[in-house]
Amino acid sequence: MRCVDMSCVIPEVACIHDAGFAAHVQTLLDEKTKPVGSLGVLEQLAHRIACILGTDQPVLQQPQMVVFAADHGLAARGVSAYPVDVTWQMVENFMAGGAAVSVLARQHGVALNVVDCGVARDFAVREQDPHDKLPKAGQPRLWRRKVAYGTQDCSQGPAMTAQECALAIRNGVELVKQLPGNALLLGEMGIGNTSTASLLLSRLCGIPVAQVTGMGTGLNAEGVQRKIAVLEAVLAKHADVTEPLQVLAAMGGLEVATMVGAVLQAAAERRVIVVDGFITTSAVLVASRLQPAVLQRCVYAHRSGEPGHDLMLKALNAQPLLDWQLRLGEGSGAATAWPLLPSACAILREMASFASAGVATKAD
Amino acid sequence: MRCVDMSCVIPEVACIHDAGFAAHVQTLLDEKTKPVGSLGVLEQLAHRIACILGTDQPVLQQPQMVVFAADHGLAARGVSAYPVDVTWQMVENFMAGGAAVSVLARQHGVALNVVDCGVARDFAVREQDPHDKLPKAGQPRLWRRKVAYGTQDCSQGPAMTAQECALAIRNGVELVKQLPGNALLLGEMGIGNTSTASLLLSRLCGIPVAQVTGMGTGLNAEGVQRKIAVLEAVLAKHADVTEPLQVLAAMGGLEVATMVGAVLQAAAERRVIVVDGFITTSAVLVASRLQPAVLQRCVYAHRSGEPGHDLMLKALNAQPLLDWQLRLGEGSGAATAWPLLPSACAILREMASFASAGVATKAD
Repeated sequence: MRCVDMSCVIPEVACIHDAGFAAHVQTLLDEKTKPVGSLGVLEQLAHRIACILGTDQPVLQQPQMVVFAADHGLAARGVSAYPVDVTWQMVENFMAGGAAVSVLARQHGVALNVVDCGVARDFAVREQDPHDKLPKAGQPRLWRRKVAYGTQDCSQGPAMTAQECALAIRNGVELVKQLPGNALLLGEMGIGNTSTASLLLSRLCGIPVAQVTGMGTGLNAEGVQRKIAVLEAVLAKHADVTEPLQVLAAMGGLEVATMVGAVLQAAAERRVIVVDGFITTSAVLVASRLQPAVLQRCVYAHRSGEPGHDLMLKALNAQPLLDWQLRLGEGSGAATAWPLLPSACAILREMASFASAGVATKAD
Repeated sequence: MRCVDMSCVIPEVACIHDAGFAAHVQTLLDEKTKPVGSLGVLEQLAHRIACILGTDQPVLQQPQMVVFAADHGLAARGVSAYPVDVTWQMVENFMAGGAAVSVLARQHGVALNVVDCGVARDFAVREQDPHDKLPKAGQPRLWRRKVAYGTQDCSQGPAMTAQECALAIRNGVELVKQLPGNALLLGEMGIGNTSTASLLLSRLCGIPVAQVTGMGTGLNAEGVQRKIAVLEAVLAKHADVTEPLQVLAAMGGLEVATMVGAVLQAAAERRVIVVDGFITTSAVLVASRLQPAVLQRCVYAHRSGEPGHDLMLKALNAQPLLDWQLRLGEGSGAATAWPLLPSACAILREMASFASAGVATKAD
């Protein structure tokens, strides 16, 4: 096995905190024709996006939804209510435009990219010819970045080798370099990947797996108990693994590893990263253990119905925009929340100030 | 004083509940390529809009934001942090495009209508010529439906006469009849009108005024205590008034009364009514006491930072979409939440079913 030098793979993510600029943006917001703070989360969101993009006139351009898809060896242990074929079938559904994320991305003018990071099936050649790089407007694009036909069963050994993990991360880094725009929306597909997210959260944050394990996309109570038993056995199997990249390789998924790379590169480029549910947040968690400043670039779309997600958001000190009991994944929550972001930018760019509009300020 | 026959003014709002149709829409949602219920509030919203519009292929067309503006005699008692001139100044700001609701309506292609229901100042003639009914695309429209130059001080007597109240309601009814589209977004402006909303809630729902009174747009703690004392005196002055229309006339505002008419007419026409914050919800509360089925047509944009709003939403058994600590009014919350509604409709119209997409269903 080749030695893997991860320092070549992991992009450096610099701290972008600038107290002077943050205060400047806050002053602009406070001078708008409204009582101070009265637009609540909307103005907090405007402030965050301005600080990520480094401008007091933020404009979100060419937003890119990327749905990372892969299969999981652990799925054979019965941790999901759905058969593993659903992974590739849903990839077909994303491309055909019938999935929730397809509908929502189309609705909001968000480009849809689907990445085969490790699906246990080959897709018909559909990726654009290299000479025809951009898909037709509004058409989803399939990126083939398959590292393996799914991970190994992590209840028996590591899910992936260190090399596979590094390759997946590198794929994510290189993919983002090819995407236009200044906003990345995260999505994922992989039967069994709520188990992956539970394992990563449990190990990286030291939370018992029973607290972070839910019904996924549709287990009953008995199924959840079986899932917890399987996950406890996985954690016991990898009891000595604690470093973030080792944890990712031992118990992660190829879609999560690719997403870790994408998050790191997007953060390095100061793109706004719109985080979806439990699985995408687990990629942000891993990325933040490698480069903590990635968290400065994240906007959290929603708190999902999966119990581990709330604990994960708390661990990241994250305030989600929506509390809608979504538990589909795919990026459906990120796509649902998306239009709230350009609204926040418009408030900062376009609202009048008390002075410019000739409106009186507070009486006292 | 002329006798006011309110039966001529109040439109009848029929019950639209249809168990068969509701079940049909739920079945369509359950057959989409997602686990049952996994789109949480998004699919509940789709279901509600479908039932309001009476179609399983809902399309929201030509949404109309209407900002009802008026002044309040009670404002002279120091219940607001802002001078009363801010009411007309903000109307000018709405028309000039610099207010939050202006920016958000423009952002989302929502037509902006501003109604002078009783502002204590005349506006320069700006309303379109009758032969030129529609304003230019994207331009706000000012409707002059002034009943009086503000209400009387309700700590001294009724805020308005029964005739004024009836005229304002009729103005709201007739205004909605002239608006295109199938969705009405509610907004308001009026220095002193959180006091109005607190009074209506306290009297109609029997909640002590201290529990429903907050900082409004920016009072300090001392100001809130003064406001509570004023409102308690108002309630004592009108201790024997309990019928909804009498309560509205005694302690309401001209913008609230006009809004009550607009809500009733929009409900009668089965438009989707997007409710904003504390003041617009108080109009829905009054309207629901006249015609309970108006509540079937409402979508609640947000839970505001004003403490009375949460109690009012609970009294209406309403589930708001956002919990963003907004307390600006104007319709800013309704405009912020707006894009979530067409997303919900798109999910119902455009998502594939398991059968049509060839995706396997649950294993068990």
